[in-house]
Amino acid sequence: MGDEFSRIAQYFAPLAGPEGLGLQDDAAIFTPPKGREIVLTVDQMLENIHFIPGDAPDLIARKLLRRNLSDLAAMGATPVGYLLTTALPPSIDEAWLKAFANGLAQDQTEFNIKLFGGDSSSSQTHISLSATLIGHIAPGTALRRNAAKPGDEIWVTGTIGDAALGLKARRGKLEDPNGYLTSRSLLPTPRIGLKLHNIANAAIDISDGLIQDLGHICKASNLAAEIYAADIPTSPEAASFSHEMLEARLTDGDDYELLLAIPPANAHALKKACGPLQITKIGSFSEGPPQVTVKDSNGAIMQFTKPGWKHF
Amino acid sequence: MGDEFSRIAQYFAPLAGPEGLGLQDDAAIFTPPKGREIVLTVDQMLENIHFIPGDAPDLIARKLLRRNLSDLAAMGATPVGYLLTTALPPSIDEAWLKAFANGLAQDQTEFNIKLFGGDSSSSQTHISLSATLIGHIAPGTALRRNAAKPGDEIWVTGTIGDAALGLKARRGKLEDPNGYLTSRSLLPTPRIGLKLHNIANAAIDISDGLIQDLGHICKASNLAAEIYAADIPTSPEAASFSHEMLEARLTDGDDYELLLAIPPANAHALKKACGPLQITKIGSFSEGPPQVTVKDSNGAIMQFTKPGWKHF
Repeated sequence: MGDEFSRIAQYFAPLAGPEGLGLQDDAAIFTPPKGREIVLTVDQMLENIHFIPGDAPDLIARKLLRRNLSDLAAMGATPVGYLLTTALPPSIDEAWLKAFANGLAQDQTEFNIKLFGGDSSSSQTHISLSATLIGHIAPGTALRRNAAKPGDEIWVTGTIGDAALGLKARRGKLEDPNGYLTSRSLLPTPRIGLKLHNIANAAIDISDGLIQDLGHICKASNLAAEIYAADIPTSPEAASFSHEMLEARLTDGDDYELLLAIPPANAHALKKACGPLQITKIGSFSEGPPQVTVKDSNGAIMQFTKPGWKHF
Repeated sequence: MGDEFSRIAQYFAPLAGPEGLGLQDDAAIFTPPKGREIVLTVDQMLENIHFIPGDAPDLIARKLLRRNLSDLAAMGATPVGYLLTTALPPSIDEAWLKAFANGLAQDQTEFNIKLFGGDSSSSQTHISLSATLIGHIAPGTALRRNAAKPGDEIWVTGTIGDAALGLKARRGKLEDPNGYLTSRSLLPTPRIGLKLHNIANAAIDISDGLIQDLGHICKASNLAAEIYAADIPTSPEAASFSHEMLEARLTDGDDYELLLAIPPANAHALKKACGPLQITKIGSFSEGPPQVTVKDSNGAIMQFTKPGWKHF
């Protein structure tokens, strides 16, 4: 593998937008769109923590971008570019780098973003990556976690828990005949582009697990939340696991679906804004100490190893 | 050590500016100052690569910020905030975190920046850190690497090679009686705030070593550079090592001084802009293939193990 500079020139410079100045300078220069606020987020992906050694490098690259894009989606921002850090062990070869850069290129096209800059380092043993995503938004329109109101309904996009099952499938712990669950674990779909300002009171993306992330809204908005297990949207592929794997589906992360606080009067507008995207009501917020309660179809509080309710 | 969320609440939330939204949301929101361009840079610090296990956590934190601040300084930008990633092994305790956060706080005050957001993860064995620095600049005034002109003089701020010697001192390979060289290695001083637009044609900060970084300007500007070993500014503490350690001083990094391309007519303006800061002419640029030549006081090309000249 070439040195840092030849690596940058060969694999990363072709990905750079004009903001990246050919990746030849000390920093990137970005002219903010007139009258817009800048939205910034960063996430890491570490080997053995966020991905499995041997995972396809293009999918690692795309998931790195998509996890961050999902954070921008949760606030309603429009992504424009990113900074990348890589720390790569000596075992990384040209084929890995090429595939990694191809993955970045693919999602740059898909999400209309460019590489603005970064930092490339060696590491001793493990791959360590981060991306800082830059987006913009009309002033005052960002969706926050702290503005859910009592009586707001809890809605989620897509289906919940596929990624948790997909991770188990990748570890050989369950069957995934058509590979759908695996694909949801390896390549999430950030819900970029939904126009939810004036529709949702609060939003978060489900990265830590539905219960945990719902708890973040509860804590920030100082509300209790109640959700109904039977209403959690389930993909056909996850349906056969829905009972026994419910806990994993609600407490493991990586779905990157949006969880929204919606005033009941806005339910119709929400469906319209989501178009063909599946969107499902799973519960509601109420006055009370910040906690999440999961109920079964008889209205009983469900007990999990990690409890179905949690104080935050 | 508490979980990710209690760690963020206890140590990092107090460092956040309003842009960080209390570190409770998915992303930060930054309103760009009217009519300014945004300048963005990111750098990593990895245990065993960029710092020595057992280094003081407050100094690691401050060097992480300062390495990035130096990149903003090289372009002439005004820093405003940063995003932080941490990946910490189980061995990290509360005392380490507290000292690390104290270091961040100290340099936030010194450089008038705030924490905008970040990502906190566990790691298996080693500490891995990154900071994304955000700054702003008047449109079109950023100093680049690609605009040096034949005949420009090469100037450097401060003294060169102290950090390289300091690293050797920290490894027990040379004496550092008053600790100055060590301090230059552990805690560089980014040259933020110099007003060099219309004075310098090109700039870079010396992070990879003087010869390497001068080479970056040569390559980006398509020029040759010649520097004179006898003119390289040397601190009193480095003076006794100046001959035998010259190669390390010119080829190891971490000085974070600025290297500037200055039209001869601007030398006076440069000195005025630098005020009390030491600033020294060490050579000049000329037409020719991108390479750096180091000459001794007799005008002979100096030979190093890593050569005193290098093609880029």
